[in-house]
Amino acid sequence: MASYQDAANYQHEISLLGSTSALLGWDQETQMPSGAQAYRAEQLGYLTKLQHSMLIDEKHSEQLRSLAEDSSLSEIEQVNIKEWLKTTHRASAIPSELAVELTETSSHAMMAWQAARKENNFAEFSPWLQKTVSLKLREAEAVGWTEHGEPWDALADEFDPGMTAESVSRVFSPLRSELVTLLDELRGAPVQPDTSFLDQTLAVENQKPLVREFLQALGFNFDRGVMAISTHPFCSGFHPNDVRMTTRYDESNFSDAVTSAMHECGHALYEQGLPLDQAGTPAGAYNGLSIHESQSRLWENQVGRSKGFLEWALPQYKSAGLANTELNKAYSALNIAQPSLIRVEADETTYNLHIMVRFELERLMLNGELAVKDLPDAWNQQYRDYLGVTPPDDASGCLQDVHWSMGAMGYFPTYTLGNLYSAQFYASAKKSIGDLESQYAAGDFKPLLQWLRDNIHSKGRQLSPADLCKQVTGEELSADYLLDYLRNKLRPVYGLA
Amino acid sequence: MASYQDAANYQHEISLLGSTSALLGWDQETQMPSGAQAYRAEQLGYLTKLQHSMLIDEKHSEQLRSLAEDSSLSEIEQVNIKEWLKTTHRASAIPSELAVELTETSSHAMMAWQAARKENNFAEFSPWLQKTVSLKLREAEAVGWTEHGEPWDALADEFDPGMTAESVSRVFSPLRSELVTLLDELRGAPVQPDTSFLDQTLAVENQKPLVREFLQALGFNFDRGVMAISTHPFCSGFHPNDVRMTTRYDESNFSDAVTSAMHECGHALYEQGLPLDQAGTPAGAYNGLSIHESQSRLWENQVGRSKGFLEWALPQYKSAGLANTELNKAYSALNIAQPSLIRVEADETTYNLHIMVRFELERLMLNGELAVKDLPDAWNQQYRDYLGVTPPDDASGCLQDVHWSMGAMGYFPTYTLGNLYSAQFYASAKKSIGDLESQYAAGDFKPLLQWLRDNIHSKGRQLSPADLCKQVTGEELSADYLLDYLRNKLRPVYGLA
Repeated sequence: MASYQDAANYQHEISLLGSTSALLGWDQETQMPSGAQAYRAEQLGYLTKLQHSMLIDEKHSEQLRSLAEDSSLSEIEQVNIKEWLKTTHRASAIPSELAVELTETSSHAMMAWQAARKENNFAEFSPWLQKTVSLKLREAEAVGWTEHGEPWDALADEFDPGMTAESVSRVFSPLRSELVTLLDELRGAPVQPDTSFLDQTLAVENQKPLVREFLQALGFNFDRGVMAISTHPFCSGFHPNDVRMTTRYDESNFSDAVTSAMHECGHALYEQGLPLDQAGTPAGAYNGLSIHESQSRLWENQVGRSKGFLEWALPQYKSAGLANTELNKAYSALNIAQPSLIRVEADETTYNLHIMVRFELERLMLNGELAVKDLPDAWNQQYRDYLGVTPPDDASGCLQDVHWSMGAMGYFPTYTLGNLYSAQFYASAKKSIGDLESQYAAGDFKPLLQWLRDNIHSKGRQLSPADLCKQVTGEELSADYLLDYLRNKLRPVYGLA
Repeated sequence: MASYQDAANYQHEISLLGSTSALLGWDQETQMPSGAQAYRAEQLGYLTKLQHSMLIDEKHSEQLRSLAEDSSLSEIEQVNIKEWLKTTHRASAIPSELAVELTETSSHAMMAWQAARKENNFAEFSPWLQKTVSLKLREAEAVGWTEHGEPWDALADEFDPGMTAESVSRVFSPLRSELVTLLDELRGAPVQPDTSFLDQTLAVENQKPLVREFLQALGFNFDRGVMAISTHPFCSGFHPNDVRMTTRYDESNFSDAVTSAMHECGHALYEQGLPLDQAGTPAGAYNGLSIHESQSRLWENQVGRSKGFLEWALPQYKSAGLANTELNKAYSALNIAQPSLIRVEADETTYNLHIMVRFELERLMLNGELAVKDLPDAWNQQYRDYLGVTPPDDASGCLQDVHWSMGAMGYFPTYTLGNLYSAQFYASAKKSIGDLESQYAAGDFKPLLQWLRDNIHSKGRQLSPADLCKQVTGEELSADYLLDYLRNKLRPVYGLA
């Protein structure tokens, strides 16, 4: 008879390798000298190989299959067995030749993509994207999908358990048409917001203590976490007691340091709030990338762009040396919706339209309904239809993101699902706690954090994201909450009723 | 027939685990949040276990034994096989029960030592030291030593290949009697050096860029290394392209930041200079702790306390805000010899006497010639005899160092052997290059570094430390060079002929 404890010990070792790899990655982005690149790749490659060989061990898989039949296990133990079976299945299903080809192709494709973007030459990237699509299709076929599903689902499931193209479309369709309508409304609005607040400069040395104080107030625990600097802000949790996040500083863009830090802090608060006694097991892990993103967006947007937060923050900006700290101007500047070409520079409203373009096009390519060579035209057409802008070239069009070159297909929607979850969760939190913004104005973020801890963080991966949403909000995920939140905020800013 | 490449690949994986553990250790000392302590111990424990289980693999040992007979291998391949056999032998020789007992005892002993030192109560530590001595004896017996040797040799060999109690005594005996004589001379000298240079304060923010400029000038390559801050300065090399070092800053002790940084930079320059094409193999590794220490001491002392260096450095100190930068005063302050109680605060001359006390006492304990209960009396007697000072209590006597509680016996001499090698190497460098100090005065440290690269760094572990010394200096290690260096420097400072 297989023992749960044996299986758990084995998986714990796999998780130790995983958290060690994550530390190597953290070090690489925050501190590693440039000359160490090749050696770091060797270290990471070896740890990944070790982890993979442990995951595909047939004896362990048998043990898990036998434990899956054991009804005497606790609910949490059953969750873990189910999730471990899922990861071992995925690892075993992908033939090692395919895994090697995927890795090698992505390494070449990333280089080709960089060159293609630089030279604004899609043809240079096109054959590599073509190869990536066919390899990802083979991966999807190896992993499998449900009866009424499609290949995209098999890829997306790795990022967000249970996410399917169908489930994504169900919320994206109404969101898209309503956002397009809202943008039309704003285009003709009587007021166009003043963004001069963002044009101010603030010395980096004055930004740093400010960001630290903000994080402390939000509830980031510096005894169980670290904040550092990196080119691209990110968060990496090795364990609830060891959570690392970064931001970046630019004298002429002080607001970016704060919004980036609040975004990553949202990720970090989630990781610090995962159940300690389940650490290193699926039941104690974050619940997919969409839920993770809901936590970062919630602190960045629902909190960080609110009037209540600004009432508390602006006097501190002033003490740090910012000249213009007028509440209404700051609030308007932080709450605009302005169609643009580049996803990573987009505001919280139009951002979602950028995501939908990517989701729809990658789905079409995987289903064989869009040839890779036709991607630039399809991309530009979608940008015209959804955002009303036309990319002047492919570099600022379909070549702008690294994701596809890395083989990350089925990933983009988690960004917008995060926005949807954040709005829906936030509506529930407000219903339960009451007037959150007056708490922020007094520098009190504890009730919100406690609500998130109780309802989301402490649940780990014990329910699917969809079931968690139902449990927390009483409803399935819907586009309504995000739309209401955006409309209620943007209309007054643009002088609409 | 065993293949060299197979064995090398296997050992390369072991070395990847080793360098990954080193990164975990580096992170722990420089950045890890306090709450992550327990989880980090788990990560490190697992990597150590993996490494150990690979080292004791009987199939691999057989492969190595068969390769040791293969005379068609290159010289470097033969070095690697010999060294790999040595580490696998050591790992296999120590029974796993003993290894576990050693680890557990050291963990308890370190806590008992901390309490005993705090409460100035040797009796609290005594049973743990007793247990440590008997376990280390069992370790020594398991590993073995040569016919005319003794248990101490088996332990010391791990830190300095080939070091024996006999070889250490041979250089320590003349060194001790001559140092005692020199200290007597200085005690009655006409001049007692003015140390007011060291009493100045310098803001930490002004020290930091200074230290960075110094390291840059010495030759530390920031593209292949990192400098950070830690409570206890150290250096850790994961690969010649990824070398990490630390220093520490204190407004009221600016000189400590510089000497610590130059010391660790000496270690770092060695690691950065190891042969790249042998990285991760014994032939490409540092040649034991004594040679490693020779490199740190050489840059800290022979270079950092020289007049030439100060001529270049003092104007920079002045620009950084130091008021008193008079050459002779600075030189005197940095070159005193003053017996004291605490090893880590000792000057470069008396430091060696602290080491000899420890070497002689640990040797006596391991040979059963000194009972652990009699250690405090023996310690105090030796301090009176060698240094002319009497510890007022055990906390500032035999309880001052962590080493024995950690089970590090056979380690202390590497510090003084490092001093001896540094003086002997430096004499050869001067003979070969000429007037080094006028080069330093002009900020030029390249010729010295190149000489060290050519003669020491690039050799890795291809010769034993003793043979390397003969090759580089034409002689066996001797006490004469360190004694000459100290006499020639200290006598003028103390107003002696």
